[in-house]
Amino acid sequence: MDIEGNLNLIGYGLAAIGPGIGVGLIFGLGVQAIARQPEARGMLQGQMLIGFALTEVLALIGLVLAFVL
Amino acid sequence: MDIEGNLNLIGYGLAAIGPGIGVGLIFGLGVQAIARQPEARGMLQGQMLIGFALTEVLALIGLVLAFVL
Amino acid sequence: MDIEGNLNLIGYGLAAIGPGIGVGLIFGLGVQAIARQPEARGMLQGQMLIGFALTEVLALIGLVLAFVL
Repeated sequence: MDIEGNLNLIGYGLAAIGPGIGVGLIFGLGVQAIARQPEARGMLQGQMLIGFALTEVLALIGLVLAFVL
Repeated sequence: MDIEGNLNLIGYGLAAIGPGIGVGLIFGLGVQAIARQPEARGMLQGQMLIGFALTEVLALIGLVLAFVL
Repeated sequence: MDIEGNLNLIGYGLAAIGPGIGVGLIFGLGVQAIARQPEARGMLQGQMLIGFALTEVLALIGLVLAFVL
């Protein structure tokens, strides 16, 4: 066997699956919400950014752990 | 073999898949609900935050376990 | 057994799953939003590009980590 590499990157890769889909859902559905109520665009964008931050942080925790663990 | 890394990070990564998708669903669909009923925004936001907290905690448990185990 | 390879590529592959689906959701749902409000096309496109960048970066982090770790 000649296997190289770092298990931590597998951990990061797994941690990025959920946020990757989640952020896509937020912006995909969010763009549809803006198309329905263009006059509420600013408020809807704020909601999307909060959701984005709360979702993306799960992947960033994995990124930090890849260096810490 | 020259493998490095920590299996705990793989565990965290798996634990983050579901919450990543789940929080994305809550905020994506929640933004659409707010666009449909903008006057009920405060109440809808409260529901979204409850759902977010209950979903995100699953990943944070994985984060704690990565250090405890 | 004569198994070769680098675990880092498995990690990158996993990191590409979520953004792959997420960017697909953004552009798929975004195209529907533009079809509903063609006159708001420029603004909706801007939203889609922001979402795309924030999602794609998760896979690119995995690409960088494959060389760093």
